[in-house]
Amino acid sequence: MIFSKTEYLLRLLKVKESMSQKKMDVIILSDPSNMNYLTGYDGWSFYVPQGIIVALELDEPIWFGRRQDSKGAKVTTYLQDKNIIFYPEDLIQSPPTHPYDFVSSFIHENNWANKNIGVEMDAYYYTAENHFRLTSTCPNVNFSDATLLVNWIRLTKSANEINYMKQGAKLVEAGMKTAFNNIKPGVKQSFVAGKIQNSLIAGNDEINIGGEYAGLTTILASGISASASHLTPKDKLFENNEGTIIELAGVKNRYHCPLSRTVYTGKPDSKTTDTMKITNEGVEKAILVTKPGNTANDVAVAFWSVLEKYGIEKDSRLGYAIGIGYPPDWGEHTMSIRKNDMTVLQPNVTFHMIAGMWMDTWGLEISESINVTENGCELLCNLPRELHLV
Amino acid sequence: MIFSKTEYLLRLLKVKESMSQKKMDVIILSDPSNMNYLTGYDGWSFYVPQGIIVALELDEPIWFGRRQDSKGAKVTTYLQDKNIIFYPEDLIQSPPTHPYDFVSSFIHENNWANKNIGVEMDAYYYTAENHFRLTSTCPNVNFSDATLLVNWIRLTKSANEINYMKQGAKLVEAGMKTAFNNIKPGVKQSFVAGKIQNSLIAGNDEINIGGEYAGLTTILASGISASASHLTPKDKLFENNEGTIIELAGVKNRYHCPLSRTVYTGKPDSKTTDTMKITNEGVEKAILVTKPGNTANDVAVAFWSVLEKYGIEKDSRLGYAIGIGYPPDWGEHTMSIRKNDMTVLQPNVTFHMIAGMWMDTWGLEISESINVTENGCELLCNLPRELHLV
Repeated sequence: MIFSKTEYLLRLLKVKESMSQKKMDVIILSDPSNMNYLTGYDGWSFYVPQGIIVALELDEPIWFGRRQDSKGAKVTTYLQDKNIIFYPEDLIQSPPTHPYDFVSSFIHENNWANKNIGVEMDAYYYTAENHFRLTSTCPNVNFSDATLLVNWIRLTKSANEINYMKQGAKLVEAGMKTAFNNIKPGVKQSFVAGKIQNSLIAGNDEINIGGEYAGLTTILASGISASASHLTPKDKLFENNEGTIIELAGVKNRYHCPLSRTVYTGKPDSKTTDTMKITNEGVEKAILVTKPGNTANDVAVAFWSVLEKYGIEKDSRLGYAIGIGYPPDWGEHTMSIRKNDMTVLQPNVTFHMIAGMWMDTWGLEISESINVTENGCELLCNLPRELHLV
Repeated sequence: MIFSKTEYLLRLLKVKESMSQKKMDVIILSDPSNMNYLTGYDGWSFYVPQGIIVALELDEPIWFGRRQDSKGAKVTTYLQDKNIIFYPEDLIQSPPTHPYDFVSSFIHENNWANKNIGVEMDAYYYTAENHFRLTSTCPNVNFSDATLLVNWIRLTKSANEINYMKQGAKLVEAGMKTAFNNIKPGVKQSFVAGKIQNSLIAGNDEINIGGEYAGLTTILASGISASASHLTPKDKLFENNEGTIIELAGVKNRYHCPLSRTVYTGKPDSKTTDTMKITNEGVEKAILVTKPGNTANDVAVAFWSVLEKYGIEKDSRLGYAIGIGYPPDWGEHTMSIRKNDMTVLQPNVTFHMIAGMWMDTWGLEISESINVTENGCELLCNLPRELHLV
């Protein structure tokens, strides 16, 4: 168990409070991060329908999934066996049958067929078909949208959660240093990506902990490919005089600490060095206003004030809340660091401030994972932000 | 470009034929594997809404996604710039606005608002909210289900596709040998997982190619955790006298070659060795009947005839079609190797035959990635299947 049962029950209490306010008797959660947050469940089983059911009338959540994953629920959650239910294996990828017919039957068996039930309409793995199966077989349920209900509760972290993110910071620093030490002209991107993965997961003797797979794979792209935001390493060779963007996360007990840096092989041109200088000035200014009472908007305004001073445009957001993550993402999907996001910062709100400057034919990235403290903020990693020259 | 434009257009032709038969004027594809299959698009951007639109009236597909990923579409696809469309960054995770409002507008602009449009109701990343946005804003569209339409066309592979899977085979053999060489009592699972990742992605001097991230992460679980099917490596130490299941894939140009084996530290008990012997006998018998003209059912019947002879039960399927994959999966979701799946095998159908024996408190796995040939089949990997003893 990664957390005490008390910590899980405290989370559950907050979720039930929010359900009561929203007049939901039951919620069905599909987002693997929300499943993990409330029960500890941890397995790469989200490629088939599964979820957590929270009912106001029940003391503890219910895990549902395929039969062969129910043993994983017994190993990784605090739930009693009676709260772990499963559908038969012959429902897996076997249309016209579908696992959500099982969920529907469960709703009827529990006399919830005329209740208010929240579903995560826009969560990963809650497909249109899942919803169609429920709505067509439970015509008297009042379905409403529970998207982000749990995610917003995740925004503020406990001391234990911050501790795991700080372990992730050690891992991602090791991964980034491995990138710095291995990128050179003539070397394959895939060679470096393999070494990075080893550092992120095996760790090293100095930090003496290992990590886990991340919600996003290693993003590593050079030259014109660095003008895009999500391209991944191939057998392409690093060349002279090109920039490479790198985005990684160290992960401990599913808690993520992401970090981005940019490497340049050879002598960078002035547009690259100038843009990096300006971006860094913006990030520094944004960090200075990151403190309780200020809003996400305030942080964004500080950053863009620098960009505007130099006439540089950036239309993508500057960051997002982080914590637990499963593929395809490590963001929490709640607060974004962008203008008009009026979320008020509080101590132990954690976010990834990422200044991705994706230009027409080139790009650069720097980022910090940040924890809001009582009086300001702390950077989880400690690694220079300037362009790393090879 | 991974394939010639001709190969992509041949795929498109087959998709359009299937659309015509199903009376769909337009289809919207959300499954990243289907996006890749028809256009070459390759980026870890599926954590935000994106897709491919195929219209009978248009010569080439349309890619849509967020603005900062549109450059990735230009780098990785054969599409003309006018077929790459994007929505503004401020729609990202910014309710009540939503990227599918943009897709809806595009439907109206193209005068498709009273057409027959297929959507992948049960595909990854096609959320209930995506569908709600489309149906509520396009009331005169006749929406129908295009789930698996493209996937079924992917079932039979070209020579180029098989070639990439064979490169994946070299990588996964290297990864599995790394597991064999590093698992020993007292070593952390995460240490071995890092080394495995390095082998799968960096490759080695002998094979001289690198790989890519897989649709599923490294599955590695020991002792009681091996009774579950999808648990992942942690900082737990390998112990004496326990079995460890390992499931990996080598990936080249998104084509997967998965492989499972079981390692035992110490002297295995008779239930483990007996079950492994029986499982192997079943797999051998199943391989013998894997040939064109036979069905998936025939292969399953051959396998279970051995299990039944020895009184062993297994309720999960024996395998599934493989090829292109993105998280969360590397399966194609079409043919399953199970009784009553009457899919007829043909040359260049590729599948993962996985005999996962997840028992009450322990488990073992062996698998082969298989290509159906003119007269029988070929195993893509060449690695002994017996229990690997440490």
